[in-house]
Amino acid sequence: MSGNSFGKIFKITTWGESHGSAIGVVIDGCPAGLQITEKEIQKELDRRKPGQSKLTTERKEADKVEILSGVFEGKTTGTPISLIVRNKNQRSKDYEKIKNLYRPGHADFTYEAKYGLRDYRGGGRASARETIGRVAACSIAKKLIPKVKITAKLIEPSLKEIEAIKKQNDSIGGIIECTIKNAPAGLGSPVFDKLDARLAQAMLSIPGVKGFEVGSGFKSAHMMGSVNNDEFISKKGKIVTVTNNAGGILGGISNGMDIVFRVAFKPTSSITKKQNTVDSKGKNKTIEVKGRHDPCIALRAVPIVEAMAALVLVDEYLIQKVLSCKS
Amino acid sequence: MSGNSFGKIFKITTWGESHGSAIGVVIDGCPAGLQITEKEIQKELDRRKPGQSKLTTERKEADKVEILSGVFEGKTTGTPISLIVRNKNQRSKDYEKIKNLYRPGHADFTYEAKYGLRDYRGGGRASARETIGRVAACSIAKKLIPKVKITAKLIEPSLKEIEAIKKQNDSIGGIIECTIKNAPAGLGSPVFDKLDARLAQAMLSIPGVKGFEVGSGFKSAHMMGSVNNDEFISKKGKIVTVTNNAGGILGGISNGMDIVFRVAFKPTSSITKKQNTVDSKGKNKTIEVKGRHDPCIALRAVPIVEAMAALVLVDEYLIQKVLSCKS
Amino acid sequence: MSGNSFGKIFKITTWGESHGSAIGVVIDGCPAGLQITEKEIQKELDRRKPGQSKLTTERKEADKVEILSGVFEGKTTGTPISLIVRNKNQRSKDYEKIKNLYRPGHADFTYEAKYGLRDYRGGGRASARETIGRVAACSIAKKLIPKVKITAKLIEPSLKEIEAIKKQNDSIGGIIECTIKNAPAGLGSPVFDKLDARLAQAMLSIPGVKGFEVGSGFKSAHMMGSVNNDEFISKKGKIVTVTNNAGGILGGISNGMDIVFRVAFKPTSSITKKQNTVDSKGKNKTIEVKGRHDPCIALRAVPIVEAMAALVLVDEYLIQKVLSCKS
Amino acid sequence: MSGNSFGKIFKITTWGESHGSAIGVVIDGCPAGLQITEKEIQKELDRRKPGQSKLTTERKEADKVEILSGVFEGKTTGTPISLIVRNKNQRSKDYEKIKNLYRPGHADFTYEAKYGLRDYRGGGRASARETIGRVAACSIAKKLIPKVKITAKLIEPSLKEIEAIKKQNDSIGGIIECTIKNAPAGLGSPVFDKLDARLAQAMLSIPGVKGFEVGSGFKSAHMMGSVNNDEFISKKGKIVTVTNNAGGILGGISNGMDIVFRVAFKPTSSITKKQNTVDSKGKNKTIEVKGRHDPCIALRAVPIVEAMAALVLVDEYLIQKVLSCKS
Repeated sequence: MSGNSFGKIFKITTWGESHGSAIGVVIDGCPAGLQITEKEIQKELDRRKPGQSKLTTERKEADKVEILSGVFEGKTTGTPISLIVRNKNQRSKDYEKIKNLYRPGHADFTYEAKYGLRDYRGGGRASARETIGRVAACSIAKKLIPKVKITAKLIEPSLKEIEAIKKQNDSIGGIIECTIKNAPAGLGSPVFDKLDARLAQAMLSIPGVKGFEVGSGFKSAHMMGSVNNDEFISKKGKIVTVTNNAGGILGGISNGMDIVFRVAFKPTSSITKKQNTVDSKGKNKTIEVKGRHDPCIALRAVPIVEAMAALVLVDEYLIQKVLSCKS
Repeated sequence: MSGNSFGKIFKITTWGESHGSAIGVVIDGCPAGLQITEKEIQKELDRRKPGQSKLTTERKEADKVEILSGVFEGKTTGTPISLIVRNKNQRSKDYEKIKNLYRPGHADFTYEAKYGLRDYRGGGRASARETIGRVAACSIAKKLIPKVKITAKLIEPSLKEIEAIKKQNDSIGGIIECTIKNAPAGLGSPVFDKLDARLAQAMLSIPGVKGFEVGSGFKSAHMMGSVNNDEFISKKGKIVTVTNNAGGILGGISNGMDIVFRVAFKPTSSITKKQNTVDSKGKNKTIEVKGRHDPCIALRAVPIVEAMAALVLVDEYLIQKVLSCKS
Repeated sequence: MSGNSFGKIFKITTWGESHGSAIGVVIDGCPAGLQITEKEIQKELDRRKPGQSKLTTERKEADKVEILSGVFEGKTTGTPISLIVRNKNQRSKDYEKIKNLYRPGHADFTYEAKYGLRDYRGGGRASARETIGRVAACSIAKKLIPKVKITAKLIEPSLKEIEAIKKQNDSIGGIIECTIKNAPAGLGSPVFDKLDARLAQAMLSIPGVKGFEVGSGFKSAHMMGSVNNDEFISKKGKIVTVTNNAGGILGGISNGMDIVFRVAFKPTSSITKKQNTVDSKGKNKTIEVKGRHDPCIALRAVPIVEAMAALVLVDEYLIQKVLSCKS
Repeated sequence: MSGNSFGKIFKITTWGESHGSAIGVVIDGCPAGLQITEKEIQKELDRRKPGQSKLTTERKEADKVEILSGVFEGKTTGTPISLIVRNKNQRSKDYEKIKNLYRPGHADFTYEAKYGLRDYRGGGRASARETIGRVAACSIAKKLIPKVKITAKLIEPSLKEIEAIKKQNDSIGGIIECTIKNAPAGLGSPVFDKLDARLAQAMLSIPGVKGFEVGSGFKSAHMMGSVNNDEFISKKGKIVTVTNNAGGILGGISNGMDIVFRVAFKPTSSITKKQNTVDSKGKNKTIEVKGRHDPCIALRAVPIVEAMAALVLVDEYLIQKVLSCKS
């Protein structure tokens, strides 16, 4: 109920703050008997960790994962899998000076409005470091649907544009497109838990996301039904659609075509330019956000988009498994 | 788990098929002591019912609501509120002829892939008639947040364009913009249940929705941080932002500014033009979808967008009430 | 969250008050393709309905069930199954006179303490009529586990004792024992959702239940480990236990032996003898509870115990189905 | 859904195996602003840890708790609180020899039936060490209801009896009675989540529990309504009952009287006496369970009964807070 869990059968709960002692995730509902090693999880984590290129933040973190439970002799046991990553390279002092200021575009003001207090170090719970737990969980989830291929990529802006923006000490937004191949028809639930509705929630739960569209998306608003409808055709004994304006989902349920969606990210809120703001007493101030930041958060979000997509798919895959079962 | 419920504290479960004997909703988690009458619920339902103008379907339904439980002497009792609307003006025979054909753009094929069988009459569970329960529930939910004003409107296409499309026996998509005024700061939860993540799920759960964006949305992908960040300013003792690119939400939590989001609808899938499709045996066929349909589903979705937004807000309002409480 | 739902996959939500216009249940999460008719459901309901013998209440109700959704051409469709029973033979006037008095042993006082108001007619939501929805739901649930046999019976008091008590215008408690045969090993979840923990909740949720024990139960408190432990033995290629003090459950998970538990009911609270009580203003009063009541509620609870046991078993059966699945 | 979580608003998820690297709990849904220190949590843990007297197991564990998240500058922040205890004094070798044998009374056989494999070291997930997380969580929960006093005590057998049993290398069961003082009227939910139904589930979730009764419990089965009903009386402006056969709960909701319930524990399953059993291949064998064990698990369960009672009460207290709220 408190927002830190995702999934109905394959359920994850993430915990931890950016500059606390550790970040982690508990996975509950993973079937027993899956082979998994710390090394495999680490490999996924390494894809998201900072400091990999000159276009991402220079904060360097080992982000070394440890399996604390739920795996025995290399296999999942059906009990909760607890994964932990110790925080190491925090520079909390960067935040001491601005602890009474609300950074524009950040959650400082709203967390304080909600909870009456906040962990001001590096965004606390609202930091993108929280997504470590999601990516770690996804590395296990994906093993349940080995044939399904989930590929996200940044389609805007170009890496050249990002470089230019970085030199201006500014930041820029971006769009990630994600394609899911080989998902069987029948995934997703009616009404409120439509596959695209869950994907939308999953994507908007990623820090910095401002928009989601599936298939022809916002463009479909200007299209006519006779153009937008995907006609069915029988092809080599399989029912497919000629076009894919639906993005692989009809009535909230996958139709066996590629699932295609796009996610819009806003520009990184932390910029070194001086900005106007207020302090916790409501006095007008200016702020310069120091620290080490990404010029384009969308760039680093690629594995996170894939992770969230995988979590939705695996969950609906397990739901379908049970609800299509006859006694 | 099966997708027919929405909400964590103020929880609704809708049931019913388009051409079954009735449609309904059970509301569980409504605080006791709220005044409510069938007349008030009916008023909201009348806003969504078909047959109101020449631009909507000609199917005429009384859609008369009955309160079956949870209300005593005009007040909610804290127990489940069961609301029912009998279906009356069904013309199931329209569907007999096409029961083995998958209508393009509809959920016929996917429901059958998922469940192995389907109620082929009028879309069954996937019909927009299902939203009756949501609108009815919302009429009660809104009483818990009387100061909050939720207003949705169709911003594209113009009604003239819709008229033109109707004459061509075709259909068109549309975009609805929704503005929420007077929502207090602090609504929404961290991480997975961000206010905009829940709104995204809520909107994508409406039949025909293909996209969602909040604040500057997809446009923010092309913006620089220095432009997109909303600076804070103190104004008459209240902390506000100068611009509202965030759409009233920071880090998934409302900041007290107007909450603004847009929802993209695809064109109505039911069109009278002949289309290619396949039957349930995989044979190529053509189909002409008779029946009475809206040229632009977005037009009739306005009260449904408002209803889903209200359900999210009320739920997060109740969550905030309990989680901000000190003993 | 509000207490009116039961089950995780096979989930039911009951609604309705004793003297409202109807009582019902929504079943969400029933797999598609099960054959079910109103007649079969009615048969189960007839087992619990009042007025069947001289030892039960004389209130006569047709308790005629109607399927409103989720079943098409005699089969479940995977969508919510809504069942309704109209209330008919209410005599609400019996309750008018005592609407300001708290009946001893009843929930009048506590519902008012909780909700600030209450439907005083016949116990409102706390009435045993609420269990109609449970029994109706169970008639469908049982179809998922056709081999499992659930049999409850009143083991105390004798029917003669009940007759004697009735003549005294008094009431008496009772104990029901329930035996579940042919449940496979492996049902139940670790830690909080142990099979016996869920059965305990299920049984204590039945009106008037004051105790639950499984296997040797309270007696085991006086036993030594060497006596109470059930030794394993291999018998015709199957692993069984020599004794069954565990009542078929070890560590919260079924072991393949008969599941055996007992449920203690208090005597009917409604008795015609004059009792001391207070009114809603806190004034001391006396009360004589008129109306038509059972001398022993345990007697009529037999099908309800079976129904709740079935709901737990089916739910854990479906959970086991998905969590033991390998990709 | 997988059984490792408890609570609806104040929700805990425990993880960890007896002989894994650590044991822990994530608390999600704790209101912000509560003062809490590791020292306070440690104090509660020390009450349950082994090795405190000659009547408990000799396994010595530091059981040192660490707060990993959700607490900042000594106060809860409203985000998930992650607590961890490293396992240290494991003697896994004790279990190597019996890893293919099913210990009578233990969950070895059933976990393997359920999951297809098991962590055989010390009971794995079914070990009572899992309850560390519950006790730790409870130390925080209790701060939300400071006036409520929860006191459990072993009422059977006497400590002398336990000593005698220990000398025989055998074990014995026991009964714990728990009394909750100062709980306000109005806690608990209707129908399935009655306060006593949730307490029953909570208690049966404790390893070794075989029975639960509230108020007059099983005795009420032999009582007449005229005796068992608790008459109301007005006393110093407060409505109370003259007797308390109900155990403080009517219709599943607290009535302001002491809440009284009893919990039956079976004797410790691990005994050093030789027992018959089978191995994982179904061959008949004998087993002698070495290791360090409690002669009476009920003795050490006292703080766990209190912890589970506190978790139920806090959860229903928060639910009541929100559902009794008017806008």
